[in-house]
Amino acid sequence: MTSAASPLFSEIAIVGVGLIGGSIAAAAKQNRLAKNIVGIGRSGERLSAAQQSGLLDAVSVDIAATGSSDFIVVCTPVDRIVADVRAVSSSSRSGAIITDVGSVKGTICRSLHNGLRKGTTFVGSHPLAGSEKNGWEHADADLFKDRLCVITPCPGDEKPEVQTVESFWQAIGMRTRRMTPDDHDRALATTSHLPHAVASALASMLSPEIQDFAATGFRDTTRIAAGDPSIWTGIFLQNAGPVAAQIDVLIERLRQLRDAASEQNATALNALLREAKQNRDQLSE
Amino acid sequence: MTSAASPLFSEIAIVGVGLIGGSIAAAAKQNRLAKNIVGIGRSGERLSAAQQSGLLDAVSVDIAATGSSDFIVVCTPVDRIVADVRAVSSSSRSGAIITDVGSVKGTICRSLHNGLRKGTTFVGSHPLAGSEKNGWEHADADLFKDRLCVITPCPGDEKPEVQTVESFWQAIGMRTRRMTPDDHDRALATTSHLPHAVASALASMLSPEIQDFAATGFRDTTRIAAGDPSIWTGIFLQNAGPVAAQIDVLIERLRQLRDAASEQNATALNALLREAKQNRDQLSE
Repeated sequence: MTSAASPLFSEIAIVGVGLIGGSIAAAAKQNRLAKNIVGIGRSGERLSAAQQSGLLDAVSVDIAATGSSDFIVVCTPVDRIVADVRAVSSSSRSGAIITDVGSVKGTICRSLHNGLRKGTTFVGSHPLAGSEKNGWEHADADLFKDRLCVITPCPGDEKPEVQTVESFWQAIGMRTRRMTPDDHDRALATTSHLPHAVASALASMLSPEIQDFAATGFRDTTRIAAGDPSIWTGIFLQNAGPVAAQIDVLIERLRQLRDAASEQNATALNALLREAKQNRDQLSE
Repeated sequence: MTSAASPLFSEIAIVGVGLIGGSIAAAAKQNRLAKNIVGIGRSGERLSAAQQSGLLDAVSVDIAATGSSDFIVVCTPVDRIVADVRAVSSSSRSGAIITDVGSVKGTICRSLHNGLRKGTTFVGSHPLAGSEKNGWEHADADLFKDRLCVITPCPGDEKPEVQTVESFWQAIGMRTRRMTPDDHDRALATTSHLPHAVASALASMLSPEIQDFAATGFRDTTRIAAGDPSIWTGIFLQNAGPVAAQIDVLIERLRQLRDAASEQNATALNALLREAKQNRDQLSE
């Protein structure tokens, strides 16, 4: 725990104050990680409301307002992160550390490996926490507690600032793990992006006539399909290779189930369902 | 509400005291639907424990023990329902009404349309409630509250007992809806059996190395894959035609998502994800 007398940072800026950015602000405030928490966004009105609610100490629609911060977290959609990190870097003071929360890391880390303003450092992060809800109104200081945050320094780029970024996520309650951006993207293609594709494909099949028959199972399996389509479009585009490969694997598994059912092969069906249950039983909830 | 003085039935028998059978017993007791509730199962030890817990008034491992009941609910797996209903019918008293809770109705209703003991009646039911948990220890009298129960008389077979079966499910808090067995099976192939296939296919892809990256989205989407493999094998075998057809539709939707991602087609991706979100937003939770 960080004591109130010596916060980890002097000022933290959050660029993009939605559910994740808002929750980071709430968690940073609760843990007194900085004297000031600044929110940067596109809507002055929504930012003012967030400030009035006590979530932020100062707000601005100008990304240059991050210039007084020593730690900046870019929480914009994946297709805007590269441009936003560049903009933050060009107005930042020397020694500023910039991280992000993007669900895809390869393209971002490759694009930002060079060309940032001297004296500023970018280290990619992906806190594995979220919700199908949107907006800072649903911000939750406990969203990150005991969850995993993947830190993705570019290969061969293990500078000391990586440790500072890790300390930040740990200070809001997360476990951290370092990986290469590409290893991250392959793992998340299966554990996060594929579930979204599957949930969406399944939800798209719910015609109005059969809506009444969608019970708990359908609801659980499609819950994440309620996520923001434009955010997920960006994720699928940036991680297209691994996502397409994993969709193909899933299609093959579905074909095995279909064929076993069509051939009335109880042994094969049972083996497939049993393997799946064993995997699922290893996860909690 | 049924008053304590005039219960709907004299004695209700539950054949198969698992999560569903146990929850029906608990709900029937809570609503005082019968003077006696009898449980029939295969393990005398487990039945005695259920009786000692107060869930059942009497227990037996002999299906002929249903002979004193006027309402019998068969809660065994789908591949045993036909044989169990026949066995119940052959020991039942005249006027006994038998229903079931099977997730597939076509094969069951066709098999039981004729040949039951004269004076006994079978009407198929499917209460759309459940859990990935197993065993009467998880029985919950509120499991059925406000959920839908589909009643599936065989076409042209709308006898007065159908109304009695409806009254039973309504008395434990369910909404009811009559459908033909085949219409039921087609609807449930999409809203229940397909989600299970999808959840299982996805769960089967979780290798140990990437388990740590399975967050809320993966957990929600695969939750039902923890269901009992032998129960689901029976369901897939009995509804193989509609399930296979719906798996093919899902594979086509997944291909559309994959192709849109591979071709970096943001417009197509966004349209697919938006349609899915609109469907999902119409469901609660």
